Amino acid sequence: MSLINTSVKRVLKSTAIVAATCFAFVAGNANAADKVYRLKLAETWGPNFPVFGDATKNMAKMAEEMSNGRLKIRIDSANKHKAPLGVFDMVKSGQYDMGHSGSYYWKGKVPNTLYFTSMPFGMTPAEQYAWFYHGGGMELMEQVYSPHNLMSFPGGNTDIQMGGWFQKEINSVEDLQGLKMRIPGFAGEILAELGAKPTNIAPGELYTSLERRTIDALEWVGPSLDLRMGFHKIAPYYYTGWHEPGSELQFLVNKRTWEKLPADLREILRVAMRTAAYDMYTQATHESGKNWVSIKSEYPNVQVKDFPVEVMVALKDANDRLLAEYAKKDALAKEIQESQASYLKQVRSWTDISHRAYLNSQAQ
Amino acid sequence: MSLINTSVKRVLKSTAIVAATCFAFVAGNANAADKVYRLKLAETWGPNFPVFGDATKNMAKMAEEMSNGRLKIRIDSANKHKAPLGVFDMVKSGQYDMGHSGSYYWKGKVPNTLYFTSMPFGMTPAEQYAWFYHGGGMELMEQVYSPHNLMSFPGGNTDIQMGGWFQKEINSVEDLQGLKMRIPGFAGEILAELGAKPTNIAPGELYTSLERRTIDALEWVGPSLDLRMGFHKIAPYYYTGWHEPGSELQFLVNKRTWEKLPADLREILRVAMRTAAYDMYTQATHESGKNWVSIKSEYPNVQVKDFPVEVMVALKDANDRLLAEYAKKDALAKEIQESQASYLKQVRSWTDISHRAYLNSQAQ
Repeated sequence: MSLINTSVKRVLKSTAIVAATCFAFVAGNANAADKVYRLKLAETWGPNFPVFGDATKNMAKMAEEMSNGRLKIRIDSANKHKAPLGVFDMVKSGQYDMGHSGSYYWKGKVPNTLYFTSMPFGMTPAEQYAWFYHGGGMELMEQVYSPHNLMSFPGGNTDIQMGGWFQKEINSVEDLQGLKMRIPGFAGEILAELGAKPTNIAPGELYTSLERRTIDALEWVGPSLDLRMGFHKIAPYYYTGWHEPGSELQFLVNKRTWEKLPADLREILRVAMRTAAYDMYTQATHESGKNWVSIKSEYPNVQVKDFPVEVMVALKDANDRLLAEYAKKDALAKEIQESQASYLKQVRSWTDISHRAYLNSQAQ
Repeated sequence: MSLINTSVKRVLKSTAIVAATCFAFVAGNANAADKVYRLKLAETWGPNFPVFGDATKNMAKMAEEMSNGRLKIRIDSANKHKAPLGVFDMVKSGQYDMGHSGSYYWKGKVPNTLYFTSMPFGMTPAEQYAWFYHGGGMELMEQVYSPHNLMSFPGGNTDIQMGGWFQKEINSVEDLQGLKMRIPGFAGEILAELGAKPTNIAPGELYTSLERRTIDALEWVGPSLDLRMGFHKIAPYYYTGWHEPGSELQFLVNKRTWEKLPADLREILRVAMRTAAYDMYTQATHESGKNWVSIKSEYPNVQVKDFPVEVMVALKDANDRLLAEYAKKDALAKEIQESQASYLKQVRSWTDISHRAYLNSQAQ
């Protein structure tokens, strides 16, 4: 870590002939303003992971340029640290200063982390940013992460995720019985309630599993990331979304690291993370449009399907039952659920007369 | 403008006894890194204008904190500079370093500025950010502003604007004949094509004009700003939007000011403007939801209406005719229109299977 910047070094060199008191004073004063802070960030993704990995690079570049090199963030991808789902622990312990991951990955460890990525039947990206920044979301997230020596910030939105690629149509709740689908996490629990068989499969094996019908369906993200996975070549139905209507990644920061930073670098880091998160949402919107046009033009027989109302109602009922169980066990879970439900009701009343009305009018 | 920072002053004081060569060298090196840049920003809005005015304050605060006080931006509201629609000229001439306004206000002066706020039947906020940052929008905006010694950046989104408050229902194109409506700018031109009488009225007189039926209708923004205007107390119909589906304000920067800034302060300014713009969209989403719930609870008889398909088709035809005239006269206008049309087609194919499908499924 360089404690003395170049201009001070030049001063020291040229003033070697003057009194030692002058020398010492200059160096002492320069330390605070010119110290370089080198932080290490562990991301859950592999190297050069599209969109998600661009968010960390964008954040680190902004932080370094705005600080004139005083804040340098080294990004270690999963191939380096070998612990994609160890990011929470590595940042908590201080092995890493920062992380980039998804809050709901830590549900097995800290159940209330579930609520800060995206909830089935929940808020869209713009609605959820409004909840985070104006509806109490950030404060609730702090209550969940603070006891673990961590700060969590929005880390980039994937936009509404698609319901997934299916080999056969889903026309009724019965069609979900025994359906083998790659769908991890809470959404998988909901499907299991309706008789489906949710599984998790390593990304590298997904294509073959779907092609060989080892699984009947899978969800990944949306066209922004699905295109390169090639699922459109082997599955005819692309279902619209319900389970992750605005998945927000997260930046994690170790609290001791944060406290060591001077005020200007804290603000630089806060703003760089915030902008990189918004920027990722913008990029996801762009990539989704571009890639969806590609998929449709190369594979015009891909059919976009909505789940029937009956299926959506059953999924929503299962969702509500599971959430009620979580709320019964934990007062903070109840508080977060209530905050999200009441905020969603308020903001959706607006989204319905603006976005929904406008998009429907333009589709006519 | 302070050229010497506090720590250097302290050095100078304590080294008064040492050789003059040391003295001069220290002060000379400190200038570049510690010089305070004081910029003046003129905003089109009055003091403490809600939402819009918060965007400039948010930007200036981030810039000052991230630069540790090296970048100080003084905001002059319209009551100070007395020229709300003189912002373009004042920043161009260098009388102000920066501005906060709306690009389409300059259409009479530079016709192609029309395209960088929001276009009727155009992109939603997220779609338009994708166009600006990934679809060539920023580059086209630069072509329009650069000859005027100006840089323009997104400056905050109002979200989709409502179609306005009406005293009577619009059931057919005939109902637009002779309709006196406050609706300035390009949207007013479109309505005039269909026989309406668009007018512009000072904000302070709008309420009385609508109440006394001097006008039959008016558009303002949406619940975020309409609530305090009180129109819901005197007009029964609130029509959904078509003419400004994602109005983005603008930050203007004088190019010479930009070129004088060191690289780190340029990046701080760029990121502060970018974040403040996104943040305003988040705030507008929040305020719209909150205020729309207030309006509905206090005035439950307010009716939300969509224009009939026949009216929307006629408005769209008039819009297309006017745009074709503009394109015929100017090659750059044609290029911008084509860029927007092809980008909208690409991105909307995604928005339709994500946002539209999801919002419709949840409204069932």
